[in-house]
Amino acid sequence: MPSHSVSPIAVAVFGASGYAGAELIRLIADHPNFLLRHVSAGRMAGQRLGAVLPAIGKQYADLMLVDGEAAVAEGVQLAFTALPHATAANVVAGLVRQGIRVVDLSADFRHPNLENYQAAYGLVHSQPELLQSAVYGLSEWQREAIAETNLVANPGCYPTSVLLPLLPLLRADAIDVDRIIVDAKSGTSGAGRAPKQSTLFCEVNESLSAYGLPRHRHQWEMEEWAHNLGGGRTIAIPFTPHLVPMTRGMLSTMYLHGEAPQAWHGIIAQQYDNAPFVRVLDEGDLPSTASVSGSNRCDIGIVVRDAHNAVVVSCIDNLIKGAAGQAVQNANIMLGLNEQAGLSAMGVWP
Amino acid sequence: MPSHSVSPIAVAVFGASGYAGAELIRLIADHPNFLLRHVSAGRMAGQRLGAVLPAIGKQYADLMLVDGEAAVAEGVQLAFTALPHATAANVVAGLVRQGIRVVDLSADFRHPNLENYQAAYGLVHSQPELLQSAVYGLSEWQREAIAETNLVANPGCYPTSVLLPLLPLLRADAIDVDRIIVDAKSGTSGAGRAPKQSTLFCEVNESLSAYGLPRHRHQWEMEEWAHNLGGGRTIAIPFTPHLVPMTRGMLSTMYLHGEAPQAWHGIIAQQYDNAPFVRVLDEGDLPSTASVSGSNRCDIGIVVRDAHNAVVVSCIDNLIKGAAGQAVQNANIMLGLNEQAGLSAMGVWP
Amino acid sequence: MPSHSVSPIAVAVFGASGYAGAELIRLIADHPNFLLRHVSAGRMAGQRLGAVLPAIGKQYADLMLVDGEAAVAEGVQLAFTALPHATAANVVAGLVRQGIRVVDLSADFRHPNLENYQAAYGLVHSQPELLQSAVYGLSEWQREAIAETNLVANPGCYPTSVLLPLLPLLRADAIDVDRIIVDAKSGTSGAGRAPKQSTLFCEVNESLSAYGLPRHRHQWEMEEWAHNLGGGRTIAIPFTPHLVPMTRGMLSTMYLHGEAPQAWHGIIAQQYDNAPFVRVLDEGDLPSTASVSGSNRCDIGIVVRDAHNAVVVSCIDNLIKGAAGQAVQNANIMLGLNEQAGLSAMGVWP
Amino acid sequence: MPSHSVSPIAVAVFGASGYAGAELIRLIADHPNFLLRHVSAGRMAGQRLGAVLPAIGKQYADLMLVDGEAAVAEGVQLAFTALPHATAANVVAGLVRQGIRVVDLSADFRHPNLENYQAAYGLVHSQPELLQSAVYGLSEWQREAIAETNLVANPGCYPTSVLLPLLPLLRADAIDVDRIIVDAKSGTSGAGRAPKQSTLFCEVNESLSAYGLPRHRHQWEMEEWAHNLGGGRTIAIPFTPHLVPMTRGMLSTMYLHGEAPQAWHGIIAQQYDNAPFVRVLDEGDLPSTASVSGSNRCDIGIVVRDAHNAVVVSCIDNLIKGAAGQAVQNANIMLGLNEQAGLSAMGVWP
Repeated sequence: MPSHSVSPIAVAVFGASGYAGAELIRLIADHPNFLLRHVSAGRMAGQRLGAVLPAIGKQYADLMLVDGEAAVAEGVQLAFTALPHATAANVVAGLVRQGIRVVDLSADFRHPNLENYQAAYGLVHSQPELLQSAVYGLSEWQREAIAETNLVANPGCYPTSVLLPLLPLLRADAIDVDRIIVDAKSGTSGAGRAPKQSTLFCEVNESLSAYGLPRHRHQWEMEEWAHNLGGGRTIAIPFTPHLVPMTRGMLSTMYLHGEAPQAWHGIIAQQYDNAPFVRVLDEGDLPSTASVSGSNRCDIGIVVRDAHNAVVVSCIDNLIKGAAGQAVQNANIMLGLNEQAGLSAMGVWP
Repeated sequence: MPSHSVSPIAVAVFGASGYAGAELIRLIADHPNFLLRHVSAGRMAGQRLGAVLPAIGKQYADLMLVDGEAAVAEGVQLAFTALPHATAANVVAGLVRQGIRVVDLSADFRHPNLENYQAAYGLVHSQPELLQSAVYGLSEWQREAIAETNLVANPGCYPTSVLLPLLPLLRADAIDVDRIIVDAKSGTSGAGRAPKQSTLFCEVNESLSAYGLPRHRHQWEMEEWAHNLGGGRTIAIPFTPHLVPMTRGMLSTMYLHGEAPQAWHGIIAQQYDNAPFVRVLDEGDLPSTASVSGSNRCDIGIVVRDAHNAVVVSCIDNLIKGAAGQAVQNANIMLGLNEQAGLSAMGVWP
Repeated sequence: MPSHSVSPIAVAVFGASGYAGAELIRLIADHPNFLLRHVSAGRMAGQRLGAVLPAIGKQYADLMLVDGEAAVAEGVQLAFTALPHATAANVVAGLVRQGIRVVDLSADFRHPNLENYQAAYGLVHSQPELLQSAVYGLSEWQREAIAETNLVANPGCYPTSVLLPLLPLLRADAIDVDRIIVDAKSGTSGAGRAPKQSTLFCEVNESLSAYGLPRHRHQWEMEEWAHNLGGGRTIAIPFTPHLVPMTRGMLSTMYLHGEAPQAWHGIIAQQYDNAPFVRVLDEGDLPSTASVSGSNRCDIGIVVRDAHNAVVVSCIDNLIKGAAGQAVQNANIMLGLNEQAGLSAMGVWP
Repeated sequence: MPSHSVSPIAVAVFGASGYAGAELIRLIADHPNFLLRHVSAGRMAGQRLGAVLPAIGKQYADLMLVDGEAAVAEGVQLAFTALPHATAANVVAGLVRQGIRVVDLSADFRHPNLENYQAAYGLVHSQPELLQSAVYGLSEWQREAIAETNLVANPGCYPTSVLLPLLPLLRADAIDVDRIIVDAKSGTSGAGRAPKQSTLFCEVNESLSAYGLPRHRHQWEMEEWAHNLGGGRTIAIPFTPHLVPMTRGMLSTMYLHGEAPQAWHGIIAQQYDNAPFVRVLDEGDLPSTASVSGSNRCDIGIVVRDAHNAVVVSCIDNLIKGAAGQAVQNANIMLGLNEQAGLSAMGVWP
């Protein structure tokens, strides 16, 4: 149950008109310690929040979207930046310089290894000096570092869904690191709100397709952090993303090979025994995306196939544990609040 | 922001394995004043809550579903009954006799006029003496009565969506009561979780159909309460429900005729000016079900068509404002808690 | 069963890259008498048909999309124009001048009453002299006229779904023409393939909304042809369109008032007794959009509500009987082919 | 273009009320050489076809469903059996004894290796003597054998989607047969029409999950026929099926390892150069299920990942190329008709 601070924390959301922005605003509006004070958008600046985000309650419907370049409202102590990469880096740098704590949902501060950033995004980083203080916000693995930083690089959705089940096995040296295969599937909200023919309802509905081959940007992120948090080895994580005709949800099916797969369930379950937002199912049970949709949970299922192989399946809501929810979780940790404040472990089901 | 009571209120849910039951449990689990203590089910009794409802967080996953006949757990102060009509009446009577406050989501206590109940459900009522103390829980219209009862009859989803926009106009004597037509559309969760061919995914998906003609049960409920709360006249509300290929959401399109439709927006807007869960859009704007999905809101749009006609459209989440959310809102009022405790005015969007 | 002509008819499709264009191409490709020779598009000109329309079989995948301004391929005898209004008028005029028979799917030739066209589309017509020879192609009502024209104005989807059940009742003088109300619902393919935020998957999915109020363009078309084909009276058809989270399908719920509604089923059923593509259900049965999806059928259900009211529900596939299918049906009639050639009365179900 | 035989072939469908049965009836109704004469069902026997299958056109709506035990109608020359396994075996045996040609859509005659059948289905086969004459109907690979049999065992949907791209590579000895991994995804129509909680709309919609682990029945079928048609080696095809929130469509993502993956596109493309229903996309392009939905096509995409790995993706409509369409294709071959008669290579899109 959330603890109430004496005075609420004033919060800004940059990039409020997109899907991750919308989810941030919902979570902030219902958060016991936060007060939404500043919202910015690009094309939609100058409009009321309620005109741009249809699901807004009365409380915040009349808040005005300011331009992304506008000065941040006075008193803001915490900012969530949900902006395109490259744009984010400069906005984040400005906020940090003003002493505002930032959770950045872009890719700009996820890669301490600048070569990976450049390879994945084809860009020279504009704020490399900030990378030292940025902490990769995979909450369950970085609580101590997050508590001591003022800049969290919120992980990508695919990396979150893959690293949560994978890291315990890597740390235990349980799997062959050159035999990993990840087949991942995402709901369409991950593709964003900008109008494109490929994400029109009639193109996505009743259709399923793979994309992003031969190498999706998130593969660099997964591999860099499997290395950094998983024991320091070089690890290849070939993965194939798929677009699924549903709005929310991400499911990653991992094909893993090693010596004693019957031990893997125990390794993963023990790791997350006390984590409120990771639920490891009984061995043999398999999760579904609908089970975690609307919650900040990651559900993990493990099925042993034979003496050397198991299939590990993880599910998250890509907009919550894969974006806005983990961002709020990280903000809670950074600010010393209850880690669960404003977040639900219950899916909105059906 | 929810106020915290010193000691939480122990709550029971009867009929926990269905869709309304699942939503009740989510709202109770995240409610600042409630503690879930007793859950019962029919066929699924004896199973863990987490095995029956996939979206359950760790906190309540191991709670056992008891049989519907089992004695209610000690200390329970509040019960939500989400049972089939006729079954509900007897369970409710037993709970009330034990001094437990009840919000009943069935139709059994919605009809003070027993003839209507019998006509709609083809049943003789088994607990008619309880009808006197039951209060019809259309929250925004019955706050005072709800605060003084121990038994709330939670309204049906269609009646909620129709009565909220209609009652202000009836009270203002603004519309011709013999020219009302309601075309209503519901997501499929309203059809329940019992396996039926007609609600299989492949039968509902990519399909739209009308049903329930010539007279759906909820028509009696609408007409009875349009009379009771709308000024005492006899009112016919012919309505046609439709099944829509989506899980949640209900939209009612009302065709209304009268003298001065340009005044109707003001009448409705003024009525709900201070209601946290009713949002009247600017005149000419039209709501969508996705905007209210996941919230306890009802959004209302009004468009004047000509000098004598307007179209009024209302949207609710049929499982929240149309069922579990309004039930929690009513429980809050009945118990003297903040009416908004544990409820969100923000839709889960997209 | 289709009859085979000795030599196939060379066909052109203008506007081949949209949804109606795609459906035209499918029907032409599988038509026993047609050979697809010319396809044009706007932005997508210069690409292979298979690159623009993903569902193309091998036979036509390498056909090149030419620019809309390019001369029509030699030998073309029949053209389908699926272009925006105003653009269509000029293209159609050019084709007719070349002696090519045309089925135009735009609104440009649907309004012999130019005032209606101007009111609905806000345009002065650029080819008014062609209106005399154009025939409004509601196939079941205009067979003789279609057989004698070289220019068919293919009806809109909403007007098709409304006029088919309404005209027999108007002709029989069975209903009060000032008490008609139409609540119509359409799948999203009717909104076209141009990228817009409002038709993105995540905006439409799990959502339902009304739009087009107070007066949608198709209302002029319905009212003009209810007058022209329904007995010459002035008829108001207030209608409210809704956007449904499905790709195909259109359902119109009509609220009709009159003296003897128990006679209406017989009037409608008799009218279409020999129409292969109109199926009148048993009285009291209600159609679904999925039942007609993929077919050129219109299914009609009639339920009597009381002594003066009945609800009439009609379903079509908006891209087939509401666009490309009726266009092929009209071409068949115009060319003296079997009316059913290349068209299916079987829905693709589930 | 279909050739017309002088007199149509009388056809029976056993198991007409399910999803595969419905699709068979649609294809037969629109087939230039077939006449539907006998339809049987289990629970739904005694009803009109139009009452059980909503998409039926007028032509066959009044055909009566007879009981599965009833004698087949006189004159039937060809039967499609879409019955549960074990039930099918006995019905098929009876039909074959009467000299009727049969395409069986069950699993009963797919396994010449009886041990595999018993392992996969847990049954002793009731008609083992018929297995000798049965031909496994993977049309593109078995044309000669099909042309000479009177009993075709129609392949399963997953095996069809996997074997079509895999067999050319196996025949060319191009891939490491102990490093195959298949991640497959299916629309929900594959789960059948019997009412189950797990396939209700609200359980499937907006959800994605893996199932069938550790070993789905179709794995035996894939492995047996990869052996039989792919060169005689023992091959393991570990595969994980997933349930996708769409009605039709199956996508199999195959992770393949070998020496020279850059050659694989050519191997597969050459194999199907003349196959009207297999479309190999340009190297690097990826198919979608919507592209093949409504058609009898299989679309295949190949992306080379690195010097030893490629991803191969195949898409079919599980009810057409994965069931009823391939059954008609096999019947056409068996009867000496045009292989494409009554089948479309065009998807119904969008």
